[in-house]
Amino acid sequence: MAWVSATYLLESRADEVHKRAAALALEQSVEMPLEAVADPKIRDSIVARVASIEALDSQRHRVTLQLATATTGEDVTQLTNMLFGNCSLQDDVALEDVAFPPELLERFGGPRHGISGLRALAQAPERALTCTALKPQGSSPQALAQLCETFGRAGIDVIKDDHGIADQAYAPFAERARACQAAAERASQSTGRPVIYAPSLVGSPRRIFEQAERAREWGIRAVLLAPMLIGLGTFAEFVTTFPDFIVLAHPALGGATRISPVWLFGKFFRLLGADATIYPNYGGRFAYSADVCRALAHAAREPWDSIRPAMPVPAGGMPVERVPEMLEFYGRDVMLLIGGSLLAAGDRLAERSRSFARAVVQDV
Amino acid sequence: MAWVSATYLLESRADEVHKRAAALALEQSVEMPLEAVADPKIRDSIVARVASIEALDSQRHRVTLQLATATTGEDVTQLTNMLFGNCSLQDDVALEDVAFPPELLERFGGPRHGISGLRALAQAPERALTCTALKPQGSSPQALAQLCETFGRAGIDVIKDDHGIADQAYAPFAERARACQAAAERASQSTGRPVIYAPSLVGSPRRIFEQAERAREWGIRAVLLAPMLIGLGTFAEFVTTFPDFIVLAHPALGGATRISPVWLFGKFFRLLGADATIYPNYGGRFAYSADVCRALAHAAREPWDSIRPAMPVPAGGMPVERVPEMLEFYGRDVMLLIGGSLLAAGDRLAERSRSFARAVVQDV
Repeated sequence: MAWVSATYLLESRADEVHKRAAALALEQSVEMPLEAVADPKIRDSIVARVASIEALDSQRHRVTLQLATATTGEDVTQLTNMLFGNCSLQDDVALEDVAFPPELLERFGGPRHGISGLRALAQAPERALTCTALKPQGSSPQALAQLCETFGRAGIDVIKDDHGIADQAYAPFAERARACQAAAERASQSTGRPVIYAPSLVGSPRRIFEQAERAREWGIRAVLLAPMLIGLGTFAEFVTTFPDFIVLAHPALGGATRISPVWLFGKFFRLLGADATIYPNYGGRFAYSADVCRALAHAAREPWDSIRPAMPVPAGGMPVERVPEMLEFYGRDVMLLIGGSLLAAGDRLAERSRSFARAVVQDV
Repeated sequence: MAWVSATYLLESRADEVHKRAAALALEQSVEMPLEAVADPKIRDSIVARVASIEALDSQRHRVTLQLATATTGEDVTQLTNMLFGNCSLQDDVALEDVAFPPELLERFGGPRHGISGLRALAQAPERALTCTALKPQGSSPQALAQLCETFGRAGIDVIKDDHGIADQAYAPFAERARACQAAAERASQSTGRPVIYAPSLVGSPRRIFEQAERAREWGIRAVLLAPMLIGLGTFAEFVTTFPDFIVLAHPALGGATRISPVWLFGKFFRLLGADATIYPNYGGRFAYSADVCRALAHAAREPWDSIRPAMPVPAGGMPVERVPEMLEFYGRDVMLLIGGSLLAAGDRLAERSRSFARAVVQDV
């Protein structure tokens, strides 16, 4: 029998934690009193087990449960259900980490391209990569395409849609994505280097899959998806259905949960096939600490069975001036995402974009 | 121009709240500094606006933003992105409530059946309804079907799969759902009253839609779906694609967010088409207060434009003894869900199930 080891932080006093952990194990498996489970096979092979309890302080404990792999049906949605379905409704529980048995690693498979695939597409085998965002939403397809060409000519590797750009009346997906891809191709021809445009795909599964079909026809090689927003099952199905796309994962809606961002954005998105994972860098508009960011990047890149490394993409209000510090902090297996700070340059947008690209390219 | 009014709770001091609210408005719309937004049309019609700020105490404020409807693309995934995509990553923000413009109400449409449709199917025009769950997972299809028949013969209206039951090797969806539906039909023929079986559909969108197609062929009329788990866009697409099913919404993964459960389970799930909405009742295994539960039931049932009322389904460790109290609290437009407490009766399962059904039916 195989087990998934799920580690939770429980707010519970020492004299109550054993009872609380046992209740959590029932909640996340059979969801009924143990004495009402008559079948010994179910008690042995289905009911979750408390594997360990570690005191962190007088009020908090780290509890590891073993969840039967059989209950997941080897399906990502059901796995998430078993990991954090019902207990998400209990305020005293947070999901910290998960160790998967080999069959689940194989089932989900991780990035189809990962860091090396992204580097190959960008023709940048060693240096850090650069990324920026097309914004603001409300702009016309022509305005976004023009911006895309400017960024591309400035030497930025990956140009993604802002995650708020979807299929809106003022910039319908088809018109916008085709125009931006054409702009990226013009910039590429002009500079003689790859310019990768990644449209944001947002919507119901059918809509996302239709958009991906069209994007592929237009020569688009990378896309931006927010797994928590579109659903982890939709995300996993996308990666399986369109293995040719480089997939950038966006954290939208993901921080809302009491799930460790290190695990969710660094490890779980990677397992499900994110080639690159965007997350809020420390010292920006979001509250993640440097320690969290370091651990997240480590989770995305560290050796992990047969799972390819995913590219960490720190973002969220980073100015160009922080490039040297970020390269020092993350090393070279990183893609720096700077958006608003380039746009804030106004007339000097092209110049500041070139500074960004140069600062990364010349840092060797 | 139409606007969506989104109300947030902000942890912020009075001397900082105006700046913080303005930053939130930018985060949830253009995601860049206002001074970098050159186009006056975008400033006027796309950038979110701070509509009001109300002090709750020295550290907390209620802030209402107006988000441009145009940015949602009238798509549920993108709407969620605009409401709580990026700011979910900021610890000081919680989403409390949303007021939608008429075009979005019309676009999403609410329950296809609602309370009246569920009552018609159950042939119970006035009294409260009863619901229970097939569990534990790990049981064979035959064991679950037998349990389903026992519950049905005892007079329970709706028998749903436990939300942990998916498409697992020990009880594959097809075998299980067909066997349980046949058992419900036998119980119905024997008692002369409807017995409604609702299988849990879990998985990637493709898998869920395939399961629904088959369920429909087998005469199944109701299903259980967890919108946050499968993705709100998948949920909305399901309701549109299969308008004939009565849809019971399960809160799994939903409480993880800093989103008001009153709004999410009571109002948003209803808007997206949940005919009935399951949530943790007060005094059970979960921490919701009586006030939250009252407000949630009210949100599900109150008159709301052309949107049908959804049936509130309080659950989560309720014993049969609490039936009179719950009926007193919720009135008759409610479906009481009792699972584990029936199963804990062991050999007296049928008897306790009859007590449950009788307690509700005879209460008039």
